[in-house]
Amino acid sequence: MQFPDIQLTLPEWIGDFCGQWQGGFDTESKRAAFVVALSRENVARGSGGPFAAAVFDPQRGMLVAPGVNLVVPSACSSAHAEIVALSVAQQVTGAHDLGAAGLPPLELVSSTEPCAMCMGAVPWSGVRRLVCCARGEDAEAIGMDEGAKPANWEAALAARGITVVRDVCREEAAAVLQAYAAQGGPIYNGRKL
Amino acid sequence: MQFPDIQLTLPEWIGDFCGQWQGGFDTESKRAAFVVALSRENVARGSGGPFAAAVFDPQRGMLVAPGVNLVVPSACSSAHAEIVALSVAQQVTGAHDLGAAGLPPLELVSSTEPCAMCMGAVPWSGVRRLVCCARGEDAEAIGMDEGAKPANWEAALAARGITVVRDVCREEAAAVLQAYAAQGGPIYNGRKL
Repeated sequence: MQFPDIQLTLPEWIGDFCGQWQGGFDTESKRAAFVVALSRENVARGSGGPFAAAVFDPQRGMLVAPGVNLVVPSACSSAHAEIVALSVAQQVTGAHDLGAAGLPPLELVSSTEPCAMCMGAVPWSGVRRLVCCARGEDAEAIGMDEGAKPANWEAALAARGITVVRDVCREEAAAVLQAYAAQGGPIYNGRKL
Repeated sequence: MQFPDIQLTLPEWIGDFCGQWQGGFDTESKRAAFVVALSRENVARGSGGPFAAAVFDPQRGMLVAPGVNLVVPSACSSAHAEIVALSVAQQVTGAHDLGAAGLPPLELVSSTEPCAMCMGAVPWSGVRRLVCCARGEDAEAIGMDEGAKPANWEAALAARGITVVRDVCREEAAAVLQAYAAQGGPIYNGRKL
């Protein structure tokens, strides 16, 4: 028997988008503004859902890896923006553990708070910090399903040494979700894509 | 800027292992026995941690896609066995939604109950049934971390139309975990790999 590989490829436009970004990455709000802009661009380009994420080296103010939702173009239900950004960052660094010795402390910024799957993925990734823009309820407000997260999910991440920061650029991020819904973007049976 | 693709490749031996399996897939316990054997083989071959999973078409008694833990060989922390099996099944079927019209109801069998990430991934995948062999506490007993799952995670899946069956071949599956720990297999800082 033979089985296919799994391959996830970022959209072609993303390299130029990142390279031409003039906003900087040296503060939390600038990094969040970049990720929200990336989510907006993903919708504008028709390359996926209204979700983006990125891994940064905050000490150096550097982008390590971007991610956008690739569920439909890749036929892969786990290709949420956070999983994509973390996995690309792990390819860039060659480390399955982004918290490994020799790496600077890395940060994941997500345009919407992670769903149950992505929340669960964060501790395994080795990032030390999670910055969230829109809230889960902003995604649920347009019919997306965030899944079964424990009520104390932030504390559960904190107990694993991960700092969680919420509501950075929340309004801008929620506006992308609203605009996506208003233009009839697919909600896919209430599953978050 | 340029960013690498994410590529996950099953171990070379897995095609032959599946093709030569004589145990059949027509009952739940046979499918579970296959998945436990796959987890044992992954350890014996040195190709990853003591975890395996597979997607089946239970009505036809057919294997759709196997998965093993590829975290270390692929440098990808989200490449748990369940995510790999679901993603390969989605490549095989060409559908990000394994519950899509035109597909038979599909089942995920996991050698150990899913961690928080994999539990969160199940509803997005479209499988209609989850069969678990070892319990989460069997993995925790050898130092693995299952992550922050809600106490009522089975009910949360059931509410999304997914039947959960536990403890099928539990002793055999737990024995693989115990043997892995006894031979000094890496536990990786308490993270489940």
